[in-house]
Amino acid sequence: MPNTITGDTQLYAIIGDPIFQVHTPEMMNRLFAREGLNAVMVAIHVAPQGFEAAVKAFRVMKNLRGFIATVPHKTAAAALCDELGETGCAIGAVNAVRREADGRLVGEMFDGTGFVAGLRAHGHDPAGLRVLLLGAGGAAAAMGFALAQAGVASLTIANRTRSKAENIQAVVRKSFPHPIVKVGEADPTGHDLIVNATSLGMKPEDPLPLDTALLTPDMKVAEAIAKPEFTPLLTTARAKGCIVHSGRHMLEIQASMWMDHWWPKESAKSKG
Amino acid sequence: MPNTITGDTQLYAIIGDPIFQVHTPEMMNRLFAREGLNAVMVAIHVAPQGFEAAVKAFRVMKNLRGFIATVPHKTAAAALCDELGETGCAIGAVNAVRREADGRLVGEMFDGTGFVAGLRAHGHDPAGLRVLLLGAGGAAAAMGFALAQAGVASLTIANRTRSKAENIQAVVRKSFPHPIVKVGEADPTGHDLIVNATSLGMKPEDPLPLDTALLTPDMKVAEAIAKPEFTPLLTTARAKGCIVHSGRHMLEIQASMWMDHWWPKESAKSKG
Repeated sequence: MPNTITGDTQLYAIIGDPIFQVHTPEMMNRLFAREGLNAVMVAIHVAPQGFEAAVKAFRVMKNLRGFIATVPHKTAAAALCDELGETGCAIGAVNAVRREADGRLVGEMFDGTGFVAGLRAHGHDPAGLRVLLLGAGGAAAAMGFALAQAGVASLTIANRTRSKAENIQAVVRKSFPHPIVKVGEADPTGHDLIVNATSLGMKPEDPLPLDTALLTPDMKVAEAIAKPEFTPLLTTARAKGCIVHSGRHMLEIQASMWMDHWWPKESAKSKG
Repeated sequence: MPNTITGDTQLYAIIGDPIFQVHTPEMMNRLFAREGLNAVMVAIHVAPQGFEAAVKAFRVMKNLRGFIATVPHKTAAAALCDELGETGCAIGAVNAVRREADGRLVGEMFDGTGFVAGLRAHGHDPAGLRVLLLGAGGAAAAMGFALAQAGVASLTIANRTRSKAENIQAVVRKSFPHPIVKVGEADPTGHDLIVNATSLGMKPEDPLPLDTALLTPDMKVAEAIAKPEFTPLLTTARAKGCIVHSGRHMLEIQASMWMDHWWPKESAKSKG
């Protein structure tokens, strides 16, 4: 349960379109209560055309400490911030924004670092692995960036629209010259870790994001989708003997990262 | 305790400067919970220069159902609404605003009707009384308007700056030709009900808003100040045998009025 909301409660928001499906307020309000903070997170439903007005208002709300931008606002949020962290700056999207006392906004993207931290927390260090990344949206960019940062041996990005995969390839290569980063097909052959960063699997009628007949028991299969916790991909992979890793972990582990971002020990890297 | 906040919780805000001192979120969240509504009210601290940006954002927040404007935003809130109720239109200030599904804002002022309803609920019908109203700010305007509407015999408005008292006199006379409305001194002699609508009494060091030596036991003394519940004026008046009426009632009784405004049975009068 959140703390009782008073006149001096600090505000946090998660903003998205749609928003009804998010569980972030429950997660964060439990955490705020456990930490003894007089703070509350609410979910705010804003369409893309209203996002800039909402962010302008966040700047003037003196007791708003920060917000989470979720789909489809992560790129727009980065563009409206005054400062960006390293990942946010590299990929041009953020999901957590801190409001400074003077109204300045400092954003960073934690989807990728959260994903990698979730893998590690479950004993799956991606260092040295050959990774197949499915998808090339905002989440895929963040995850590709973080996987390269974590020292994967290679990263194959597979996406229906090839140019989007090439964009991620370029962004990752610019920051991390070491791993082999290539654009390829949705074929798990020759990979140790398969990561689904497409939205396929959210709806029951979605097709699988790759041909599961090609999965072998030595492969690990991870999801970015948190709900359902076990997508058809994960269920099928598990049945084939693969170790599977739910998208729920990537979300849950970000809570403490967001807290660190909102109460930073050192200031974020300047955008300019 | 408020309901657990989820992705589809409806939002309400109280916005003011300062805001830390308000108890409205506690009051409304208890009420929402009792009514079984998935709704929450948060307090937002916005300075006057940020108020317009905040209201623009409220328009685009699709799950925001309404807000309360408190000091110093009540006049600005009226100016930014698309529609005003009768009192809000007459006095040019509102404290409760409903957001329609299309983002249009409908405001009304309940400070005065709340005050009168609070009086009546405690057996003090102001109809036929000779009333002395101290102060000529936003609360005083709303209370003068509502007292005239309630059928007082006369209304004397006393304020340090006489022109502000004359403004209220003009506004009240325009809507209610029947009662005698005059501008006068802070002298209770010849009045049945004394109403303090100044801010004197909020701070311990404030002077009294009138010469309490002139109070007699046949007078009723009422406050707009909710905190402290018993101001020096009320304490002194009670010691002299007057019936006293705390400003807390005017706030508490408004909760149900705001609820009716947010879930209206009929639409408010157009502003235009």
